[in-house]
Amino acid sequence: MMEYTDASPVQIEAAMQQAWTAFQTYKNSSLQQRADFMRAIADELAQSATELVHIAMEETQLTEARLRSELARTQFQLTSYGAACERGAWLDVRIDTALPDRQPPRPDIRKMLVPLGPVVVFGAANFPFAYSTAGGDTACAFAAGCPVIVKAHPAHARTSELAAACIERAAMKCGMPAGIFAHLHGVSNEVGKALVEHTYTRAVGFTGSFAGGKQLFDWANQRKQPIPVFAEMSSINPVFLLPEKLETDGVSVAEQYAASITLGVGQFCTNPGLLIAVASPALDNFIGELSAAIQRTVPGTMLHTGIFKNYVERRAIALSQADVEMLAVSAQEPQYNQAAATLATVPASVFLTNPLLHQEVFGPYSLLVQCSSLDEMLQVAQALEGQLTTSVIATVAEAARHTALINAIQDICGRLILNGVPTGVEVCLSMQHGGPFPATTDSRFSAVGADGIRRFARPLAYQQWDNTLLPAALQDENPWGIWRTINDELTKEPVKRN
Amino acid sequence: MMEYTDASPVQIEAAMQQAWTAFQTYKNSSLQQRADFMRAIADELAQSATELVHIAMEETQLTEARLRSELARTQFQLTSYGAACERGAWLDVRIDTALPDRQPPRPDIRKMLVPLGPVVVFGAANFPFAYSTAGGDTACAFAAGCPVIVKAHPAHARTSELAAACIERAAMKCGMPAGIFAHLHGVSNEVGKALVEHTYTRAVGFTGSFAGGKQLFDWANQRKQPIPVFAEMSSINPVFLLPEKLETDGVSVAEQYAASITLGVGQFCTNPGLLIAVASPALDNFIGELSAAIQRTVPGTMLHTGIFKNYVERRAIALSQADVEMLAVSAQEPQYNQAAATLATVPASVFLTNPLLHQEVFGPYSLLVQCSSLDEMLQVAQALEGQLTTSVIATVAEAARHTALINAIQDICGRLILNGVPTGVEVCLSMQHGGPFPATTDSRFSAVGADGIRRFARPLAYQQWDNTLLPAALQDENPWGIWRTINDELTKEPVKRN
Repeated sequence: MMEYTDASPVQIEAAMQQAWTAFQTYKNSSLQQRADFMRAIADELAQSATELVHIAMEETQLTEARLRSELARTQFQLTSYGAACERGAWLDVRIDTALPDRQPPRPDIRKMLVPLGPVVVFGAANFPFAYSTAGGDTACAFAAGCPVIVKAHPAHARTSELAAACIERAAMKCGMPAGIFAHLHGVSNEVGKALVEHTYTRAVGFTGSFAGGKQLFDWANQRKQPIPVFAEMSSINPVFLLPEKLETDGVSVAEQYAASITLGVGQFCTNPGLLIAVASPALDNFIGELSAAIQRTVPGTMLHTGIFKNYVERRAIALSQADVEMLAVSAQEPQYNQAAATLATVPASVFLTNPLLHQEVFGPYSLLVQCSSLDEMLQVAQALEGQLTTSVIATVAEAARHTALINAIQDICGRLILNGVPTGVEVCLSMQHGGPFPATTDSRFSAVGADGIRRFARPLAYQQWDNTLLPAALQDENPWGIWRTINDELTKEPVKRN
Repeated sequence: MMEYTDASPVQIEAAMQQAWTAFQTYKNSSLQQRADFMRAIADELAQSATELVHIAMEETQLTEARLRSELARTQFQLTSYGAACERGAWLDVRIDTALPDRQPPRPDIRKMLVPLGPVVVFGAANFPFAYSTAGGDTACAFAAGCPVIVKAHPAHARTSELAAACIERAAMKCGMPAGIFAHLHGVSNEVGKALVEHTYTRAVGFTGSFAGGKQLFDWANQRKQPIPVFAEMSSINPVFLLPEKLETDGVSVAEQYAASITLGVGQFCTNPGLLIAVASPALDNFIGELSAAIQRTVPGTMLHTGIFKNYVERRAIALSQADVEMLAVSAQEPQYNQAAATLATVPASVFLTNPLLHQEVFGPYSLLVQCSSLDEMLQVAQALEGQLTTSVIATVAEAARHTALINAIQDICGRLILNGVPTGVEVCLSMQHGGPFPATTDSRFSAVGADGIRRFARPLAYQQWDNTLLPAALQDENPWGIWRTINDELTKEPVKRN
């Protein structure tokens, strides 16, 4: 592995100073300039695809197919968020025209979202492209009008260097201001701490462990001027299996879930780590099918040794808890760095009293909680922490009948799936990739989809400004042709001044 | 003053338990039900207007005219946020229909904002109606679908009791679930702490001092499950006086600002506490006019003794700083509890090196910072903390010319005013009442205007749900007739399933 030196305090200071200077220009860029820049980054990634995938394979153990598809997703994020940026609806323009004859007169007021300032992005271990250097947080920050400072993930530092070079080339080609992007290394926590604490840092994006995200959140809140941190952290993505559906479709659900639990060696933040069902003969059949499928799974190589060791440890601790019983494990012996898919079970009464069983075992591991009744299933739902997703496996009739249960399940998640699997996070505006703590640090925002742009922007109202001095988005003529709310009506029409 | 007992731990627990139970029903209420409830509260306030104003006059020393207008504002907030709630655009509905033929197939995904859960609201000392018990935070939380627990401000506890009774009558009439609203007293900080730390509390709204808001923010972030706090705290609302405008319109600007500085005895969060100008003969004329107007001001009685003592102390400290010179004070001697309007001045070079002068003196006090050049004015802009508002007094030509200055001013505020005064906060969708820390704890949201509803809601995505199981806002037919973004297009049309 190539070694990079941790960024020095002097380098960090220089990067932040340049980012702040770049911000003064970039914040006033047009939506089209931002979208062009984002498309240019996607082009550069496409041109460097072979090299990027090659290096990422060496660093992450992920397959070529997976990495190619992740790189394509990364390009799509850049181009589709760029397109959303250009459409301008995300600016949330609101215009209330003057009422000079009212007593007291109402001034003309116009509001839009403006960028927060330099954003520090921490790359994710499990997504070297899509949630790292040129990934979703970076794309959203650029769309919002913010310079980006990436702290590379040490587990794929060379991949990160290459992606950074793509961004830098795109910035040059698009005539972006120097300092719009910086790329720093840091194995030590001190680099991350210095970046989060720097006075010019105005927001933080992070995808990773609970411990890591929570630490950034705490540092950010302890600043003299606290700043928002969007950390996407920990989720066990509970799946509620309702009896009627299990009765009629148990076999196909078992197959679907065996695939979801083991997809990508279980290294997705939406991996279903918890199944909840009511004991019944249909459940026993389901367990048989799922166990057989898990046993057939070929052990897969994990991203890096740290993640592998963590899996082995966390799995051992989970399995050693009282009344936890192993149901199935991959029949084939795993090599070093490989994870054996594992299914365990525990009675709901035990699960409810042992908080350790609510914690994530990152990897192809799932725990089946067996309830004595639907009432107990409701208790489990009410006892769970915040999640990125929850899934309900149910007939339409039983989903309609069990309103208290569905209600409780809604309260703990950002995305609610019916008769599907949580893995596979679509990149589209309707996606919510976020959820109540500890899934993320702020459930009011999403890490996936163009709504993620809003994490890095804030409203600014202009009161009584001359039309010629206003930003284009707020001018009477609506030169960008965007949707705006004028006197409480959504329209693309120009403003008619009174 | 009538005495109320601090809420006991048992009372707090009961209120939170009931709020949580109410939430399970209220979160599924229709937008119309919420709007009806909010209109009913406004009606009850109208019917109790005489009593409310009478008691509030006893408790706050505010004039009848001011209190009547504040009560009318409070009713308008409830009805206009109710109307915005019903229009439903704030739900940010996004629908992406299934693409079954794509590889892999894309599921149907639909997202909308859903309520966070019980919201704790802390009443403000300076607005017994509009930012207290039945005020803006309560209105936004009800619109979002959240139960509300109000911690009454001890300085107007009886007024708060009366307003709470109005809300309770409205809740009864509208058939709202028990626990939708609770009203608690607490002189001790322990009550507020217990409310913020309760496991069922999902968000906090606050208007008041920096020390108070920051404490709530810290408690909320130190919870096992941190929750968002929207605290509207401290702002000195800088006013940048540019030379050409001062030359041509100095006299009228001086009159306008004398009125703004002393409005409501300076007890508004948008009070202009800082004026920044470049030394010149035109500035000397402006100072003369403003000083004369300040001297003519009749001292006004402050809200309560605590605020009065605070004013006297903070003003004395500010005036005792090196190189701070008093320019003018009300000619008439103030009585106990009355504030004498005060204008002071300091050279910019001193202001830049003395952080104490950047702090708020809550009351009719303003500090004029005299710069030697526009470059020094830019330095002052860059040195200021986050603000609710900044004002620019300038000709169109000079506002257009000094882009670096306007840029720097934008970065520190939520509302940017040209040739107007910051006092007078319109209740409309385009209003931004929020700003970078320490003006508020989250610049991405507003405390005034219907966009404030979003503080208490989060997106929830439904993946692959049957149309009959979806909330009305997401159903194919668009039964509420609201604006929705379907496959990236804003429309009121129903969904055409593929």
